[in-house]
Order: sequence, then C-alpha cells, then structure tokens
Amino acid sequence: MNLRHLILLLMLSVAVAARAQATLECWDRFEVSFTHAAKGNPFDVELSATFTNGAQQITVRGFYDGDDTYRIRFMPTAEGEWRYTTRSSVRALNRQQGSLVATAPTGDNHGMVQTKGLGFAYADGTRYMPFGTTNYALAQFRPKTQEKTIETLSKSGFNKTRFCILPKDFPCPEEEPMSYPFLLKSRTKDADGKDCFEWDTERFDPVYFQNLDHRIEQLLALGIEADLILFHPYDRGMWGIDAFSNEVHIRYLEYLIARVGAYRNVWWSLANEWDLVKTKTKEDWKILTRAVVAADPYRHLCSIHGGTAVYFDYWMPEYTHVSIQDEGPVFTSTASATLRQIYHKPIICDEIGYEGNIKERWARLSGQQMTYFVTNGVLGGIYVTHGECYRDPVEQEFIYWSDGGELKGESWKRIAFLRSIMEEAPNAPMMADISRDEVTTTCGDGYYFVNLGKNIQSAWRFNLPRSNGYYPRPKAGTKYKVDIINLWEMTIQEYPHLFEATEVIDYRVYDKHHRDVRLPDAPYLLLRIRKVE
Amino acid sequence: MNLRHLILLLMLSVAVAARAQATLECWDRFEVSFTHAAKGNPFDVELSATFTNGAQQITVRGFYDGDDTYRIRFMPTAEGEWRYTTRSSVRALNRQQGSLVATAPTGDNHGMVQTKGLGFAYADGTRYMPFGTTNYALAQFRPKTQEKTIETLSKSGFNKTRFCILPKDFPCPEEEPMSYPFLLKSRTKDADGKDCFEWDTERFDPVYFQNLDHRIEQLLALGIEADLILFHPYDRGMWGIDAFSNEVHIRYLEYLIARVGAYRNVWWSLANEWDLVKTKTKEDWKILTRAVVAADPYRHLCSIHGGTAVYFDYWMPEYTHVSIQDEGPVFTSTASATLRQIYHKPIICDEIGYEGNIKERWARLSGQQMTYFVTNGVLGGIYVTHGECYRDPVEQEFIYWSDGGELKGESWKRIAFLRSIMEEAPNAPMMADISRDEVTTTCGDGYYFVNLGKNIQSAWRFNLPRSNGYYPRPKAGTKYKVDIINLWEMTIQEYPHLFEATEVIDYRVYDKHHRDVRLPDAPYLLLRIRKVE
Repeated sequence: MNLRHLILLLMLSVAVAARAQATLECWDRFEVSFTHAAKGNPFDVELSATFTNGAQQITVRGFYDGDDTYRIRFMPTAEGEWRYTTRSSVRALNRQQGSLVATAPTGDNHGMVQTKGLGFAYADGTRYMPFGTTNYALAQFRPKTQEKTIETLSKSGFNKTRFCILPKDFPCPEEEPMSYPFLLKSRTKDADGKDCFEWDTERFDPVYFQNLDHRIEQLLALGIEADLILFHPYDRGMWGIDAFSNEVHIRYLEYLIARVGAYRNVWWSLANEWDLVKTKTKEDWKILTRAVVAADPYRHLCSIHGGTAVYFDYWMPEYTHVSIQDEGPVFTSTASATLRQIYHKPIICDEIGYEGNIKERWARLSGQQMTYFVTNGVLGGIYVTHGECYRDPVEQEFIYWSDGGELKGESWKRIAFLRSIMEEAPNAPMMADISRDEVTTTCGDGYYFVNLGKNIQSAWRFNLPRSNGYYPRPKAGTKYKVDIINLWEMTIQEYPHLFEATEVIDYRVYDKHHRDVRLPDAPYLLLRIRKVE
Repeated sequence: MNLRHLILLLMLSVAVAARAQATLECWDRFEVSFTHAAKGNPFDVELSATFTNGAQQITVRGFYDGDDTYRIRFMPTAEGEWRYTTRSSVRALNRQQGSLVATAPTGDNHGMVQTKGLGFAYADGTRYMPFGTTNYALAQFRPKTQEKTIETLSKSGFNKTRFCILPKDFPCPEEEPMSYPFLLKSRTKDADGKDCFEWDTERFDPVYFQNLDHRIEQLLALGIEADLILFHPYDRGMWGIDAFSNEVHIRYLEYLIARVGAYRNVWWSLANEWDLVKTKTKEDWKILTRAVVAADPYRHLCSIHGGTAVYFDYWMPEYTHVSIQDEGPVFTSTASATLRQIYHKPIICDEIGYEGNIKERWARLSGQQMTYFVTNGVLGGIYVTHGECYRDPVEQEFIYWSDGGELKGESWKRIAFLRSIMEEAPNAPMMADISRDEVTTTCGDGYYFVNLGKNIQSAWRFNLPRSNGYYPRPKAGTKYKVDIINLWEMTIQEYPHLFEATEVIDYRVYDKHHRDVRLPDAPYLLLRIRKVE
C-alpha cells in the first residue's frame, strides 16, 4: 500500500464514521473514531469536536488511543439531534461532521449526579445519597484482582467508590501495577537494587486507560459512581509521577477528561490527602483544580480531599462539594450538621478511618464504630464513606481498602441496610432542631429518626422538637407510628401503639397519654417515627 | 461681629489648631478640630486629612460634631512625626496642615488587636485572648444605667464586650434610649397610641455619638475591646432605622468610622443576627461590609454574626475572624477545633445562649452550663462570649445582657478564673491530637490541659498523646507536674507526685510507674500538666 492508498483509506474510514448516525440515550456515551498516522507524537495532535443541539453547544477534546486511532467521546445532556464538527491541527481530522440522536433516558439511567441544595440528585431529579466505599487501586493490579473487586462491589450495596488513577504503592508484595498512565520508557535497577522508572511524560499508555474505561463502565452498569482520585501522595518516590510539573499534570488531566468525561458516573477528586503530596503547594492545587473544571464541559462533581482535619478552601466555586478526611464531624450528628451550615454545600467525609485490624489507628475501627460514625453523619445530613483494612498476618491477603478483593468486615452490610432505610424516606435527612436537639433527625413533614447511638435505655419517652428543619412543625393531635430499628442486627420492629402529639410544651411535643416506647436492651437503635395519615 | 470678622476668627482658630504640635503615644487618639458655619447641611461637608510619616500614609475622614465644629481623629500606627494636610469641599477647611509626634506605647498600651494565626495579638505582639461579654444597649439608656454597666465591667474580668450602635427595643419598661444616632425630627403618636418617629436620614445626632465616644474611652481605659454591632434586627418596626437604604446606612457607617475608628479598642461587627434583619439581603451585607473595610484605614477587626447555626461567608477577606451564634461547636472541644481548621481564621462564638432564668431557651443556661461551654471552646482553640439574662419577676430589674447594670450570675467569675489560667500559659490553646483525642489540649512544649468536663471519676491515669499540635512531642524520661484545677470552685491544687513519660506506646505516653492522679469527686475538673525543667 503506497501513501496515496493509505490516504484514501483513511479518508474513507473517516467518511464512514462521520456518516453513521448513532442513536443513544441521553447521558450515555457516544464515541466516534478516526484513523490517522501522526508524523510526530500522536498525543500532540490537537483534536476536538463541537456538538450542537439547538442553542446547546458542547465542545469536547478528542484523544489518541494508540494504533493510529483517535477518538471523540461525547455525553448528550439533552434529547434531540446533536450535530458535530471536528477541529484538528491535522487536516485529515479537521472539519469532520456527523450527528447522533439522543433519546430519553430509560431504566436505571437517571443522568449525571449533581448537587441539589445540601445534597445530590441525578439530572432527572431523582435523589442520590452517596453511600460510598474506597478501593484505591481498583484499576491497577492484576485483572483477576480487579474482577474480584467489581464482583464484591456488585453485592455490597455501595453506590460510589473512590479510586486512584496514578499508581499507588503496593502493600501486597505479589501485586504491582500491570500498566501505568504514562508511557514507561525503561525500568532498570540501580546499584542498590531499587527500581528506576524512566517515563515519557509526553505520552500516555492507552492500555492503562483502556482498562480504566472498562472498570468505569462496569461500575456504571452497577449504578456505582466512580470518584476518581487524580493525584495522591502514595508514590513515595517509587515512580516519581507526583513530581512531574504542573504542565505535564495538566496534560494528563486533559487526556483523562477527554477519555472518561463522557461517562456519567465519574467524579473528580483532585487529590487524596493533598497536603501530604510534598511536590505540590496549595496554589498548585488551585491551578490543577481550575484546569479540571476548564477541561470538563459537563461539570462533573469535583472536590479535593486532605489529611485528617486538613480542610481546603472548599468555598471555591470550582468545588461542587466538600470531601474531607476527619473523624471529628462524625462523633456526633450535631458536629456533622454544623459543616453543612458552614459550607452551604454537600459534605462527604471521604475517610473517617477504616474498619480493620491493622495496627495503625486509622485502620482499626470496629464494625460497630464504623457503622456508628456513618449513622451519625448521615443523620446529621452529611455522607460518610466506608473502607476496610483487614489483613490476615499469615496469608498476606489483599486489603480491600487498597488492593481490592473481598469484603471481610461487618459494617458494610449495616451501611447497605442504613441506605435502604434512608432511601425509603421522603427527603434526605437533616437535624430537626439544629444545635439544640442532638438526636432527632427529620426527613420531612411527620417523618423523623431518633438516633439512640451507644445508649442502652429501657424506654424512650415519646417527644419531638417544635422545630422541624425545612418542614412543617408537628401539630397537636397528629398520630405517629414508631419503628424500632436495630442497626447492628438489621431488624425493623413496628411498635404496637400509636402516639398522639400534644400542643407544644417548652419547645417540644409529647404523647398526649405520656407514653414511652419500650426498648430492647441493645445499642445502635434508631427510632423511625412517621405520622399516620 | 460682621461676616469679615467671623471669617478672620475662623481662619485664626484653624491656624492655631494647625500650628499646635501634639505628642502622644502610638495607638492613642489624636484629634484636631475646626470651626465652620456650613451653609447647608453641615454633615454634607466633605473633609478628610492625610497623615504622612515617611513612607507611611493614612487618610481619614473628618466628621461634623455639632455646634459648627468639625473634627479629624487619627490613630498613629508607628512612632515618629506625622504631618497632615486636610482636603475639604469647604475652602476654610481645605489644605490645613499640622503635625504630631507619636511616641512609643507605654504601660497597658499594646496597640490595636489584630489576628495572629488562629488567634489574636496586640500590635506589639502581646497575646490577646478574647474573654468577652454582651451588653447590647450599653451606650443607650440612662447615664446612671450606663455608668453601672461600666462599673460592673471594671470588676468583671472581661476584656471585650459587644454592644449595638442603633437603638435596641427596650425590655425594661422604664428605660428607653436618651438619644439616637440619627437626628429625630419628630415623635408623635398614631391613632392607636403607637410612637411614630420621623428621622432626618441626612443628619446624625452628635449628642448620641459624644456619649458613644465616652463609653468607648471608658472601656479603653479598662482594657476592654468594644465589639461594636453596626446593625441588628431589634428595631422591630419601632424606629424603622433598619429599613433605611444602603446609601443612608453607608453614610452612617462612614460617619461612625470617622468618629470612632481612631480608638484602638473598636471592632466592627456588621450585624447581630444578620439573617433576622428582614430589610437586608445577603448581598446587602456584603455591600455594607465592603463599605466598612473601605472606610477604615486601620483595618480594625471585622466580622458578622448570624442567628443560631447560620454561618455567613466568613472566608471573605473582609472578615478578619469568624463571629457566630451557635451552641453546637462548644458541645465538645473537638467540634470547636474543627471550625479553626475549616476557616483558617480565629473563631469567636459570640453567643452560645446566656446564663439566666428567662423562659426562652436561649436565656436560661445554668452557670455551670455556661462555664462548661466556654471551657470546651477555649480548650478547643476558639473563644466564647458570655452573656447574662437574669430577671426578678417582681422587681423588673435590668437584664445585664441587654440593658446593662449588674452581674447576677455565677459563670462570669469562673470565666475570669479560666482567663487567668489561660493567660499564664505560654501559648494559646489548641487540641494536642485533633479529631483523635477529645480531652487533651496543648499550649506548647510540655504544657497541657486535660478537660474532664462533666465526668466525675476517682482517678486519671497519666497519659498524653504522641501528637502535640504545633509543638514538640513528649519525650521519654520527661518529668511532669500536675495541678488539679476545679473550675467551678476556682481552686488550684498541686498534685504531690511527679510523673515520668514512657516511650510512645500505641500513639500515647504513660507514666513510667503506671501511676494515676487521684481526683476529688467533683465535676468541671481541669488538669494542668507541665513538664519540670
């Protein structure tokens, strides 16, 4: 095949790609590919496409995916015909045109998750409450391990997981990353036997990203949001990738976003433990954050996560929500609720320590403690992310928190149980009488939870605060039914008597007949109180 | 005296004022006055002066003080000769020149309080820890009441008080404001017997402000910071002053700042309970805040205060510190500490409810509860403001919180005691091991407090966290002495034995001999632990 033939073939393939009109649901991924043999670095080829649907216009970057293949991915955000035209520094890729038809979402497709007030909702308005977990190296180790993690997640009840794009050091001695985001030029050993990695900072490894795509797609099929951690401090000099310049890192961000921005389930977490990344300043994080927002036409959820009780400037408009590592706010629901008030944004405690048996104190919460913390946070109106660090000292098994694999703990089932209870409620939880009543949560008009936490008490005197968050206050004469929920045993027991609200007496209402709810002698009880229509 | 004579006389008086060279300490108030009979509204006369000392230059507004008298006040911020030149829309007041010599501060003059990290310090670096109280109408009611309040403050141990400039409705039926910031044109009664006030929104009442000056000066002499509340929601339609336009309000702010900005002890609190002022939006508060900062060449401390758990955008650079109404953050020292981490600014809970006996829940804290909340906050690294609401239902006495008068409660003495303990410490308090250890506070290398709060326990096993805030960690072999402080009884008892730190065992050090501190069976104990050099 001579050059002329090659050019004809390329033009033909482009024309075919451009002519085909795809039909897909809104929020699903449209993809078109082009073949072109670049003269220089194929990652240097500029390629973008502008998609137009009436007054709506979205421009996305294309990306090089290896094997002379360029791709443009797009997520239609509204129904109707979207027409596109490409722009490229390469003539063969320039001014290519085509169209697609976006249809109404169906089934489990509710669109992209966005913030809604102090909570989250899918694009169609369906409430989304993140009950997340953590698998830092989800897409890094051997395929078998990755598949096991996905299988575990499919059975877990979690609807979000956090994981890293850049390689994380491997606590499991037999596992190391199969491929890397950047192209590895050479791997040698120095005189001390230490691995030396030489990178091509101007080229990415499509193999790595193809696997990443696949994992994101698998999570999407499971209804799990992929909270992608873009940087982290777990390089520790092994690969030196965290020490690349902002310029190289922004190129990486743009490449990543061009690839995976069209998946509706991705979130951007600028960093895990940003303050522990010694190669970046706070100003660098702001630069990188702005680069992410600039490169993302869809405005996926975006935050940054610090070390224990290290809070970034989350009021920056670039951050859609607050993503913190801190136990303090989940010691009580009141402390959780304060954070909502401060930031006027949704709050996620994306680490409060991990359930586990490791000697480090951040990795040895009991199942009860993890459940208790998650419950406190959720009832205070914030969200709390789970993670697990169990290790068998003899068998050197995978640690779910980092390596993936199987869940061994006890809290994950309780968190799924809590999720089911919260999703049944008419609204997301908030404290009914903030900073005054530490145990009563409201989910709407006549819909309450009372969190008894670690207290074991034989009875609870029926009472509710006059204040009821955003919602109508309790009225005298309203009848309520009570369920006793045991969060640890995962049981729900309907109480056999109804209660009837009095007039307000000193900021609270009581039962007209002064009755108690008799309780089992158990901790982790949650009372659900609902008015009888 | 004809016009020519009058002009000559005025020029002479100006010349005399301009020639005299005052000598005063830095941070004291310099004042120069001019006489001029304005043709129109004397408050419309534009007057300012620029003070220059080498490269330093400060421009201040002058103000009209009644009786054809204009004044310029200035606070020298550095030693040396300051020369000034006036500018005015009135020829006789324009281009007047003079100078003053600022000498080093002496005695209790440490300069203006400013923020320093997450705390406060005077200009000379001396640490300032606000232990404030609240007297909303301090400068409003009868002189006898005002004098009684000042006398009470002089004996109280408080070093800050919050009070309102605009009139506050009067719970005490026999007291009402003697004068008002704006000029009262008429006061009549409507058909229902309700008072109707007609204001001249373009004129202020110098009599009101002269009294305000006097009260600020009295507080200054007592070493008490005057946290001036510029707006509030306690007009309730009585005077309609809170409903004036932003334009009128900015004129009021500029007048006030021209008058009292040269007092080193003033702070600006844009509002008390800003969210309850129904005549202003959040955007209005930002406009008014920026007006305050623009008018204040000294950059006095500046914040804004909301209703319970209503948090403003305190990250705005205009706010030097966070001033909140919320009990939640003082339920525990950990919750207090979280706020410092979030805002990266000093935090003052400028209302956590009041000690008192009123039926409203915000006004009926016990003395113990108030003491407990203040202690939790201070040990968590924030500051907490006191207030009192006792009323004798028969005698209808003044309520200290609003009307002023005498202190009747029990917490104020304990707060003074706590202040003396904290001022003795080498640094302001912070949690030693944030979000992990809820009771241990550090004030430096080998200087700790352990807050036992409401717990009554027979012994405390000597132990300290490995982490020690900003300070060096405890070292094995270091010897410590322990004082048992009873915050309620206001006693300090030195424990007869020394303790010797072990190596770190699982994040903590213990006593080498496994000894306890035997405790009295009392609540509100605070252990002070200091290394023996």
